[in-house]
Amino acid sequence: MTSKAKAAWIAADWGTTNLRIWAQGPDGTTIRHRSSDKGMGKLAPRDFEPALLELAEDVLDADRKTTVIVCGMAGSRQGWTEAPYIETPCAPPGIDEATTVQVEDPRLDVRILPGIKQLDPADVMRGEETQIAGFLADNSGYTGTLCLPGTHTKWVALDNGRIERFRTCMTGETFALFANHSVLRHGLSEKALDDKAFRDAVARIYACPQSLSADLFGIRAAGLVAGLSPEAARGRLSGILIGSELAAVREVFDLSDVALLGSDGIARAYGTALGCIGGSARLLDAETITLRGLALAYSSYLKVSA
Amino acid sequence: MTSKAKAAWIAADWGTTNLRIWAQGPDGTTIRHRSSDKGMGKLAPRDFEPALLELAEDVLDADRKTTVIVCGMAGSRQGWTEAPYIETPCAPPGIDEATTVQVEDPRLDVRILPGIKQLDPADVMRGEETQIAGFLADNSGYTGTLCLPGTHTKWVALDNGRIERFRTCMTGETFALFANHSVLRHGLSEKALDDKAFRDAVARIYACPQSLSADLFGIRAAGLVAGLSPEAARGRLSGILIGSELAAVREVFDLSDVALLGSDGIARAYGTALGCIGGSARLLDAETITLRGLALAYSSYLKVSA
Repeated sequence: MTSKAKAAWIAADWGTTNLRIWAQGPDGTTIRHRSSDKGMGKLAPRDFEPALLELAEDVLDADRKTTVIVCGMAGSRQGWTEAPYIETPCAPPGIDEATTVQVEDPRLDVRILPGIKQLDPADVMRGEETQIAGFLADNSGYTGTLCLPGTHTKWVALDNGRIERFRTCMTGETFALFANHSVLRHGLSEKALDDKAFRDAVARIYACPQSLSADLFGIRAAGLVAGLSPEAARGRLSGILIGSELAAVREVFDLSDVALLGSDGIARAYGTALGCIGGSARLLDAETITLRGLALAYSSYLKVSA
Repeated sequence: MTSKAKAAWIAADWGTTNLRIWAQGPDGTTIRHRSSDKGMGKLAPRDFEPALLELAEDVLDADRKTTVIVCGMAGSRQGWTEAPYIETPCAPPGIDEATTVQVEDPRLDVRILPGIKQLDPADVMRGEETQIAGFLADNSGYTGTLCLPGTHTKWVALDNGRIERFRTCMTGETFALFANHSVLRHGLSEKALDDKAFRDAVARIYACPQSLSADLFGIRAAGLVAGLSPEAARGRLSGILIGSELAAVREVFDLSDVALLGSDGIARAYGTALGCIGGSARLLDAETITLRGLALAYSSYLKVSA
């Protein structure tokens, strides 16, 4: 592709921390993939359009509007323009539920997909609904449990392609807080993790989840008085937290056969943990699933505007 | 007291964050109470003696050695001189288990009281054993549950004045991490806490402690989609964490009648929480309980050296 190639449309995943865009050619291939650290968390409303142009300016055609389909936190109340939540039970939102952003640049036509809310128990997602849509593109009419591991892991019960209910566990964030900022950090290896300690901890806490509050400090204490290695300490902390999460969601989600949207370390840890408690997991490549979901929204946009 | 008053002996509570000393007169009154932020966490071994002299120099008699009885993290491996743990079950340590520190100043005679370790489940305390000794001075031969609330709350089962077992819950530290550093901080009031939200959360999580991992993010979500106030959010977070702790310790500690060593906000929160789950608590003034424990050790030192 030359630098003069222009985008047919642009997919954008705009989270709290990062902005990622994929400029799409007319044939459905990606002609430019770029990202920046201009996530929603750092931006005031007036900063969003310049942040987008910074990544996309050179793929915009001067003579026409280019549609940009956005998912993620850019649509939150503190974001660019609020894209009000749709509510469970529901199918993942499509283009007709998107919010059109008032922009200054005449070359831009920006649509933000809404997130999903659940009222009881209260829960929210923004961005994951688009990944779910991408997953459903390959798994039409799926019924079962979908898990999207991450800083805030989402558990989703799908029934024939509809999102019946979901639950967010901030286990990834909790792990980072304990590992980097609590007294436990003194006894933890920085990266290496003992797999047996992880598995043992998952099984133990899953059988006795109420002991969580009393087990955490035990990691530090076992380092001091029982020679627990830093690698085993890291494995135990991760196992305790993921095992507790599985115990927390087992009442409302079927864990016997979970589709895990991810293939990185954290997704593999969830897969191992599910195996430890008698469940099973299929790891699915999440690399381009967001783009897939945004492309679905764009293709339905084409139909709507045709 | 004039500035020339000299100490008969000095009590020192040397924690991770702070050093507190009480210079005691010959009649058992405190002639000087001082503190500094030179806690163990900031000091290399050679820094301890100067840090002590900084607070105590002017109460030392030039013509004799003054005994300093120390409890707390100064006796840890990373501290001044390691005072090896004694092991449960045991009575709180006395002066014969103290470690004598090699000092340079001829006016100093420094003894560090040991902490206590438990091997299964692994746990440790340093400093609280001296508070327990102080508590026992007024409650000789106590049998029952003692709770020392704080950053790392200690639960202690005493049998006729002996420490049978104990458990540390890092609930105070966990609350601070979530309230100040996690995504939950966005929806939390800085100080004010809704009492009803606190009580409701305690009761709910105590009945269903395995849901902890799934309930935390719900605090943020309820702020976004169900109008949960910042004060109620703070109350709910505190209630979830303390209620989980009570569920974690209920199997091994009798919660029907707990002696709570403390009268500040956190101790009152534990008292309220125990009331919510059908237990009861007596709040005891912890202000001088550490000094009391150190004085006990000193008086037994006098007997030993008499």
